[in-house]
Amino acid sequence: MKIDDNFYMKLAIDEAWKYQLLTYPNPAVGCVILKDGKLLSIEAHKEAGMPHAEVNALKAAYLIEYPNSILKMKNSSQDIHTFLLENHNGYFNDCEIFVTLEPCNHIGKTPSCANLLKELKPKRVIVAHEDINKVASGGIETLKNFNIDVSLGCMKKEAYNLLYPFIKWSSGTFIFYKMAQTLNGCIDGTVSSKMSQLYVHTLRDKVDLMLIGGNTVRIDKPTLDARYIAGRAPNIMIYSKNKIFDNNIQLFKVPNRQVLISDDLFKLLDYKLVMVEGVYNLMNILKEKIDYIVLIVSPKIRNGINALNDINIDFEIVHENYLGEEKIIYLKRK
Amino acid sequence: MKIDDNFYMKLAIDEAWKYQLLTYPNPAVGCVILKDGKLLSIEAHKEAGMPHAEVNALKAAYLIEYPNSILKMKNSSQDIHTFLLENHNGYFNDCEIFVTLEPCNHIGKTPSCANLLKELKPKRVIVAHEDINKVASGGIETLKNFNIDVSLGCMKKEAYNLLYPFIKWSSGTFIFYKMAQTLNGCIDGTVSSKMSQLYVHTLRDKVDLMLIGGNTVRIDKPTLDARYIAGRAPNIMIYSKNKIFDNNIQLFKVPNRQVLISDDLFKLLDYKLVMVEGVYNLMNILKEKIDYIVLIVSPKIRNGINALNDINIDFEIVHENYLGEEKIIYLKRK
Ligand SMILES: [Zn+2]
Ligand SMILES: [Zn+2]
Repeated sequence: MKIDDNFYMKLAIDEAWKYQLLTYPNPAVGCVILKDGKLLSIEAHKEAGMPHAEVNALKAAYLIEYPNSILKMKNSSQDIHTFLLENHNGYFNDCEIFVTLEPCNHIGKTPSCANLLKELKPKRVIVAHEDINKVASGGIETLKNFNIDVSLGCMKKEAYNLLYPFIKWSSGTFIFYKMAQTLNGCIDGTVSSKMSQLYVHTLRDKVDLMLIGGNTVRIDKPTLDARYIAGRAPNIMIYSKNKIFDNNIQLFKVPNRQVLISDDLFKLLDYKLVMVEGVYNLMNILKEKIDYIVLIVSPKIRNGINALNDINIDFEIVHENYLGEEKIIYLKRK
Repeated sequence: MKIDDNFYMKLAIDEAWKYQLLTYPNPAVGCVILKDGKLLSIEAHKEAGMPHAEVNALKAAYLIEYPNSILKMKNSSQDIHTFLLENHNGYFNDCEIFVTLEPCNHIGKTPSCANLLKELKPKRVIVAHEDINKVASGGIETLKNFNIDVSLGCMKKEAYNLLYPFIKWSSGTFIFYKMAQTLNGCIDGTVSSKMSQLYVHTLRDKVDLMLIGGNTVRIDKPTLDARYIAGRAPNIMIYSKNKIFDNNIQLFKVPNRQVLISDDLFKLLDYKLVMVEGVYNLMNILKEKIDYIVLIVSPKIRNGINALNDINIDFEIVHENYLGEEKIIYLKRK
């Protein structure tokens, strides 16, 4: 196997995917640091307001050489920036820094990564994809102005797929189906493990709107909150021509949530991040609008209902990972 | 992400999986080499008679420092061994060598890896799983006798899953189902890409016996050879109570192949590596005997026949990888 820039960038991309969608409204970004050719850190941006991928990776890389440094106790982006600017002592001069997205150049919730990197003066910065956000971009230029060697475009297609949800929600709406099934496509009953359910609740905590079918609400009477992670219950749109529901159904009783009952799918476009659960009968109508399917696969064969047997759609697998003993597969409509 | 022994052993395990089953009758083995902490090579054993994983990784690691060495031209295990013994010059003294299986200690088709390593004197050898083959084992002892630091047991469970087919066929029979389906479990028509078909032909070239159903033979009239890779056509057992077939069907005309028509599944145990294709109706009868399912998943949703809707089986996902744009998932019966 070839161990080159692509190899290390792939490590950064895979790490970033672990937090895909969870960084909303920020992009998922990963970063890998080599010092004198030795792999020191593989980190990612984990949640909006938390340190950027570069900052997490710089911190982890510094702690490899100085494991007892006070830096270990610093968690805010501002504190890590300040510490590194004061204490780097040229530590990063023989480092190569791989980052899936152009380092940010503006001062937002956290200080700018490009401004930090130009002071740390790494030997080389390898960027997979340029920033698409006009306000944050210019990071590569900043680095080049400080005579740092910058390469752009390594693993660009993979980095684009990673960035794609951010690109969509930045200028419109990113819509994904969350599905869970067995190997043979059976969707009956609880096909997902506790760990997958935790993940689904983490997604619910992030999305602007969840779309669900009227029959699911009437029959299953779900709560559709994020209680497993003590998270925020998402706003709900119930797709139904019949607007009459029993108000005793749990989901109507969750505080601080809006519930919309409608059969106008254009309303989805009023939101930036939309998750669809169930309503397989809408897959055909929605298929032109779906960006990703987030498919949780339980490694079982089961006798039961297969939801999707009347549909023909082609996808590209953009990523997959383990969720405990199950798989999670990210599919992008071709 | 923690970058430790487990991280590097995982790279070795993943590399070995790329050649799973294809190394028959040898085990699939992977090897990773670090020099002074820097990742130099990730290699695997690819086919019986070809160099072992350690030899491939040592060669690749040496070529990083000496890219124009004559070693580049040496491909046989014997030639690589001889070159390294004569020219290593202490190059590997600051190396850590991760290997998924205890280095072999006997001289078989290739010289012993333990004997080579003890002369190269790496700083440390990390072994995931001890050898189960009495003739080849003793490699760790050989290394320790030469004062090489050896750790055993890193990623042992993952290494066991990698080794499991070898363990089974070494003392009996390893049986796997090869299946191909769409995301929603549809098996109709050609669901696999050209690359997946090449892989299937590579498997056919290796197996001792292929089990296929009588109706498949009667209706589809398949050839079941390995023509895409100009490989050996496997011997066939047609599972059928009715022993009468049209001799004009292609598979009967392939030279140098045995075709057995039987409904006695105990005959499978006369072979060491058995691939089952189709005969989904046998899945329930065979389910106690199946070791792995090798499942090729095409990222499409299709309207069609779902073969497995009357079966309940639980699996563990032991590995997955890409086959071009499709996925290959290795499932082990729980
Ligand atoms: Zn930043
Ligand atoms: Zn060997």
